[in-house]
Amino acid sequence: MSEIKDRILSVGIDLLSKKGYNNVGLNEILRLANVPKGSFYHYFKSKEDFGIQVINRYSSLGICFLNQYLENEALSPKNRIIGFYKGMIEHYQQKDCTEGCLIGNASNELSDLTENFSQAIANEFQLWQDQIEKCILAGIKSGEITSTSESRMLASFILNSWEGALLRMKCEKNVSPLKDFIEGLMMVLR
Amino acid sequence: MSEIKDRILSVGIDLLSKKGYNNVGLNEILRLANVPKGSFYHYFKSKEDFGIQVINRYSSLGICFLNQYLENEALSPKNRIIGFYKGMIEHYQQKDCTEGCLIGNASNELSDLTENFSQAIANEFQLWQDQIEKCILAGIKSGEITSTSESRMLASFILNSWEGALLRMKCEKNVSPLKDFIEGLMMVLR
Repeated sequence: MSEIKDRILSVGIDLLSKKGYNNVGLNEILRLANVPKGSFYHYFKSKEDFGIQVINRYSSLGICFLNQYLENEALSPKNRIIGFYKGMIEHYQQKDCTEGCLIGNASNELSDLTENFSQAIANEFQLWQDQIEKCILAGIKSGEITSTSESRMLASFILNSWEGALLRMKCEKNVSPLKDFIEGLMMVLR
Repeated sequence: MSEIKDRILSVGIDLLSKKGYNNVGLNEILRLANVPKGSFYHYFKSKEDFGIQVINRYSSLGICFLNQYLENEALSPKNRIIGFYKGMIEHYQQKDCTEGCLIGNASNELSDLTENFSQAIANEFQLWQDQIEKCILAGIKSGEITSTSESRMLASFILNSWEGALLRMKCEKNVSPLKDFIEGLMMVLR
């Protein structure tokens, strides 16, 4: 990927995380990324296309981070999942409990706006869910997880519950909802 | 409360649910509520004050609906909680899985904007959590719920996980995340 496109997407992740999609203007993006308008439209068909590519980029960076935990064979599958979310609590502590998850925020703000948005967001969530489900299946195989619920449902419930915990953290301005999530997670992954 | 203020708040709930706070202009509110600007500023100090009162009104209507379930002594405490969320699934099916929860959406959109917003939203969530916790305590007392986790944590996890399920529903455009929530809820309320 070109260095310029990369810079525009980085600025996009930062601005969308802080202000949401609708509150960000094209001029602000161009100014912060230090690129002319023509350059923007060389890489992005429209503001919607830009928004979708920002969501994709944020998600793929996050999945890289997720897999550092989920592929760590030094830990049991269950402890890999718990370890990831504990790592995320530190991340949000450093951010003073602001911003939350760009994909979750985008789902709230943009899912009813266009089908392009809702489908792009649903696709990214599915990628996260598949990674978590794979790890749950490893835990079931090893006998560590004995739940009779299906692995798909467990992965969906965990992923969505985390998004809700982040949404609550934003107004509480402390990580207590995230710690409650960890306790709930341990009840579910039995 | 005056009929006029009531009408402005009803329009506010509808507009904020559909478009979010930042995307709604004062003129649109005035036009749909059919009131002059002076009337609006008679009841609301500012747009922020209006937003907070819309959130409060939405929340108190929702808590009325919640308590219809939680105070139904014909059912066990656990089945009252499950019954409420099953009722909500029907509600969102009728809305074609759009909008989600106005309080959750507001938390995502407005918590980082001003402390007035984050505190008002946190207060409303706390009211919901307290009602759910009261019902969980009744279930613990009757011996129906035997979890060793504290009731506050359980109520927080349930409330937040529902918010996350709604956020996922919005992009999926089906109630499958809400059904996964019900299954998770039954795992937690053991």
